[in-house]
Amino acid sequence: EEHITVSDYLLTRLEQLGVTSIFGVPGDFNMRDYIEDHPRINWIGDCNELNAAYAADGYARVKEHSIGVVVTTFGVGELSAINGIAGAFSEMVPVLHIVGVPSTVQLKTKPLLHHTLGNGRYPFDAYTKAAEQVTISQAKLMNKGHAATEIDRVLTDCITHARPVYLTLPTNMVGEQIPSRRLGVPLPRTPPANNPDVEAYVLEEIVKLVDAANQDIIILIDACAIRHDVRDEVNDLLTKTRFPVYSAPMGKTAVSEEHDRYGGIYIGSISDPAIKKKVETAKLILSIGALKSDFNTGMFTYSIPAIHTVELHSDHTLVRHAQFPGIGMKLLLPKLTAHLKQYQQGASQLDVPRFKLDVPKETDERITHTYFWPRVGKFFKKRDVIVAETGTSSFGILDVPLPDQSVFLSQILYGSIGWTVGNTLGAAIAARDKNLGRVILFVGDGSLQLTVQELSTMIHQRLTPIIFVINNDGYNIERNLHGMERKYNDIQDWKWTSLLTTLGDLDGTLSKSYTVRDKASLDKLLDDAEFAKAGKIQLVEVVMGKFDTPRALKAAAELSAKNAEKV
Amino acid sequence: EEHITVSDYLLTRLEQLGVTSIFGVPGDFNMRDYIEDHPRINWIGDCNELNAAYAADGYARVKEHSIGVVVTTFGVGELSAINGIAGAFSEMVPVLHIVGVPSTVQLKTKPLLHHTLGNGRYPFDAYTKAAEQVTISQAKLMNKGHAATEIDRVLTDCITHARPVYLTLPTNMVGEQIPSRRLGVPLPRTPPANNPDVEAYVLEEIVKLVDAANQDIIILIDACAIRHDVRDEVNDLLTKTRFPVYSAPMGKTAVSEEHDRYGGIYIGSISDPAIKKKVETAKLILSIGALKSDFNTGMFTYSIPAIHTVELHSDHTLVRHAQFPGIGMKLLLPKLTAHLKQYQQGASQLDVPRFKLDVPKETDERITHTYFWPRVGKFFKKRDVIVAETGTSSFGILDVPLPDQSVFLSQILYGSIGWTVGNTLGAAIAARDKNLGRVILFVGDGSLQLTVQELSTMIHQRLTPIIFVINNDGYNIERNLHGMERKYNDIQDWKWTSLLTTLGDLDGTLSKSYTVRDKASLDKLLDDAEFAKAGKIQLVEVVMGKFDTPRALKAAAELSAKNAEKV
Ligand SMILES: Cc1ncc(C[n+]2csc(CCOP(=O)(O)OP(=O)(O)O)c2C)c(N)n1
Ligand SMILES: Cc1ncc(C[n+]2csc(CCOP(=O)(O)OP(=O)(O)O)c2C)c(N)n1
Ligand SMILES: [Mg+2]
Ligand SMILES: [Mg+2]
Repeated sequence: EEHITVSDYLLTRLEQLGVTSIFGVPGDFNMRDYIEDHPRINWIGDCNELNAAYAADGYARVKEHSIGVVVTTFGVGELSAINGIAGAFSEMVPVLHIVGVPSTVQLKTKPLLHHTLGNGRYPFDAYTKAAEQVTISQAKLMNKGHAATEIDRVLTDCITHARPVYLTLPTNMVGEQIPSRRLGVPLPRTPPANNPDVEAYVLEEIVKLVDAANQDIIILIDACAIRHDVRDEVNDLLTKTRFPVYSAPMGKTAVSEEHDRYGGIYIGSISDPAIKKKVETAKLILSIGALKSDFNTGMFTYSIPAIHTVELHSDHTLVRHAQFPGIGMKLLLPKLTAHLKQYQQGASQLDVPRFKLDVPKETDERITHTYFWPRVGKFFKKRDVIVAETGTSSFGILDVPLPDQSVFLSQILYGSIGWTVGNTLGAAIAARDKNLGRVILFVGDGSLQLTVQELSTMIHQRLTPIIFVINNDGYNIERNLHGMERKYNDIQDWKWTSLLTTLGDLDGTLSKSYTVRDKASLDKLLDDAEFAKAGKIQLVEVVMGKFDTPRALKAAAELSAKNAEKV
Repeated sequence: EEHITVSDYLLTRLEQLGVTSIFGVPGDFNMRDYIEDHPRINWIGDCNELNAAYAADGYARVKEHSIGVVVTTFGVGELSAINGIAGAFSEMVPVLHIVGVPSTVQLKTKPLLHHTLGNGRYPFDAYTKAAEQVTISQAKLMNKGHAATEIDRVLTDCITHARPVYLTLPTNMVGEQIPSRRLGVPLPRTPPANNPDVEAYVLEEIVKLVDAANQDIIILIDACAIRHDVRDEVNDLLTKTRFPVYSAPMGKTAVSEEHDRYGGIYIGSISDPAIKKKVETAKLILSIGALKSDFNTGMFTYSIPAIHTVELHSDHTLVRHAQFPGIGMKLLLPKLTAHLKQYQQGASQLDVPRFKLDVPKETDERITHTYFWPRVGKFFKKRDVIVAETGTSSFGILDVPLPDQSVFLSQILYGSIGWTVGNTLGAAIAARDKNLGRVILFVGDGSLQLTVQELSTMIHQRLTPIIFVINNDGYNIERNLHGMERKYNDIQDWKWTSLLTTLGDLDGTLSKSYTVRDKASLDKLLDDAEFAKAGKIQLVEVVMGKFDTPRALKAAAELSAKNAEKV
């Protein structure tokens, strides 16, 4: 029988899942030799573990059907990463967290090792208990006899639930030999089958509603359509039915924003009034993968009653008020398309105004949010990866139509600032694998300060993202939510344009940095072909007003204040 | 009856405990207005939450009898900080973690808010469960009727156990009015009384052993003597008995290293041979506050059998093999001193060779560890605060005698790298409060990359630490432990001397930076009176050999490899 080390077993499984890069920080209890020696998997050493977890999340988001992997040492490393793992849990991103732990003997004899919680709480159960809160399943490899099945179990959970999983690898297990036999069978990806009777009933119910709606139907697409991998099924539904489609913020780019049946972003009462009307007056809304969090729904201002709604989810379906647990959309959608294509003729007649955003004429020279976002919109190209940090960026970008085949990344539900910086690193590596276009990050000055060191890893890896830093003297989004003039919303100003040279481009040949303070210089830069080519890593400091705020953010903050009054 | 807001109740309690500064990052669910408005407590806005937790830890360590306080928002903020809290738990540092959470109504109605784990795990119990793993007690303020007692309960646990505690503050509780009555009674600090019969018996047993040892006695002091606040008691014991005293690495500076009865650092078989002999051949070892972790004991190579040992701890005593739970050293020590002062005459005759480290003559111009550490030893002054990062720094500094009244900070048990940067911020603020001397940090190039942004907060707060960055092309300590020539132990080189200007000293007037590559320039800098005055924040890049390693680290790595073979 053929044998393989536990580490190589794991790496082979990861390779089967399309993993080409693993993120992490070394520590004295981990499997990094096997990764460094692996011919087709790269070790990406990060500056710290939180950033590594963010990077694994970004990698997984861009590299669909694959997963992100982060390796840390136990205690100090894993707890540093845990907020990144929690974000992946919240936003449903498949990430494997591998933790190097002491030997199986030490785990039993419990010497007072460094990185432990000391005599107060021993041994390391505390760390696993913390991990249990933010991962969907966990395996502790204490025994080589179970290593392969345990690895397969957590990886299967990771890919089928699109949520992070946790694996501890004792130092002495790393090189243990185990049979490689199981590797011949790929890990299962297909969701559990729907009960055929229930499914048939659901289809019938939906067709009845569609019929009754008399062509007045729209599709509303959201985050879980991306996370639970039904984009192809949705596109097929669109092509065959030509129903108008709108998107929630977290569903942005799930369907091409250049699709002729695409009408734009619906965010409850924060929506563009024309879009709001189209969505809310439709007789039937076919909602796919909804995730109704505060910022994703315009602070819970959806005005689409259940009686007009069919909701498809990964593991259940709602038809008006009726619930159908276990009926998942991945298998339901193709059948639904088959039933609904008969409505194409009528649906095609429904008018869908094109989602667009013109660059306004403003006499003011300063760069305002009303100018900036439509202007960068013109700069985007097909297949760009566009990352927006929580703050003015994540709200500003919502109104901007993104090009066909572009990828939009933002952590709208979990909202941990600094996330985009590590995420851009992972996204850029995945984009390189997939031959996507440029990676373009929009990040606030406040947010960049949390995780700035990961710019260094981008330089080290010769990645060439374009990084727009919105310099507005601090936490604008926080000012709008609470404490407009408060000092705690100010930050220390930095020499933003020196960051890339200081953090690794020592001789200045690998990067370029720019400051733009007015519309003319912004325009000039965006029109510069050399800049647009993104041949090097580039950072653009965009100087904006301290109190200038995008429309959608201002509206959300007002609604948030109103909600707060009520409670 | 007088009333006060919940926030001001809490702040008054903190003020009573000597807290002058609170660290944190704003978020939309916290009490920062009350802090900003408080006349005697400062809000120190950090670049990220992990650094804020590290800073709170450093503040608590330097400001004895007080506590460190860190404020974060829930989920994203608290999980970002949790590794810093875990370090405080492991190393017994009193830190209060205040978490701003949604309103008590929202905590019950459970809307899908940002920063939550989403529909997968709702509401926020997951975060509290994670916090339970790394804090000694927790309070959720759901009801203003219990707010005062709950606040008092966790603060009392914090100061009496010297471990972190966790407090959630719903947005709507922040401003609630509660009676201020309880504030008249200060929180209790004294540990529980020892059982008088048992205590008398223990004293008698110890005196018998001392008697039998025939003056051949040494004291071995360790971490818990600092953490459980018995330095005064130990100094009194020293003065009255004149027993020789040695220190474990984590006990460094618990007793003045200039004390004429102080003999140096004991680290098991890694010790200087003369010190090793003195300690291991003593007939009786009076161990005070021992914490026998791997790095603190020379990888478990103590050679001092229980039969020759009395161990005093915060909550128990060991006399040879006999255990006395509940007999704590804080109250025992003064009585022990009273019993043992009769031995002074004899003990004084025991010779204690002075702990010193000469600067070697080396022909090589390069800066070696054998040269560097004794050389900076000559630079230190009374009342300096000296911080050493895990790595070549934490091992290199052990052999250096530190001046009287200096404070030594290092995270030898938990060993989370990057810790020193945030810690230096907190330490520097506490040092300013206490009118201590200079704050001097030694940090590796690898470690600094984890938490570098907090240099910015030091500049913002006009603190003036001296920061020595050991630039040795990566993770030297890791090379010694595993993978000497491996690429994963390399790091991206930075323009170290541009960090301070890039991260906040925009016009270059607030800071100075230097690179030293040879002994002559190091000497010149250290002899420069202007540099030594530390009037501005200063960063010194010290260029060292990639494979050069301090003696104690090399020895520890060899022992660690031997231990690994055994398991
Ligand atoms: C880890 C984390 N800490 C704190 C917060 C609370 N928070 C949300 S947005 C924000 C400020 C963002 O400032 P900036 O990046 O400058 O954004 P902008 O000024 O463009 O709004 C803060 C502190 C958070 N969401 N995540
Ligand atoms: C948060 C965290 N991540 C990883 C480690 C594992 N680790 C211990 S020391 C070290 C390298 C330190 O390198 P550097 O600061 O350059 O030290 P030196 O070269 O002086 O030894 C690493 C990665 C750790 N202790 N803590
Ligand atoms: Mg900002
Ligand atoms: Mg180094």
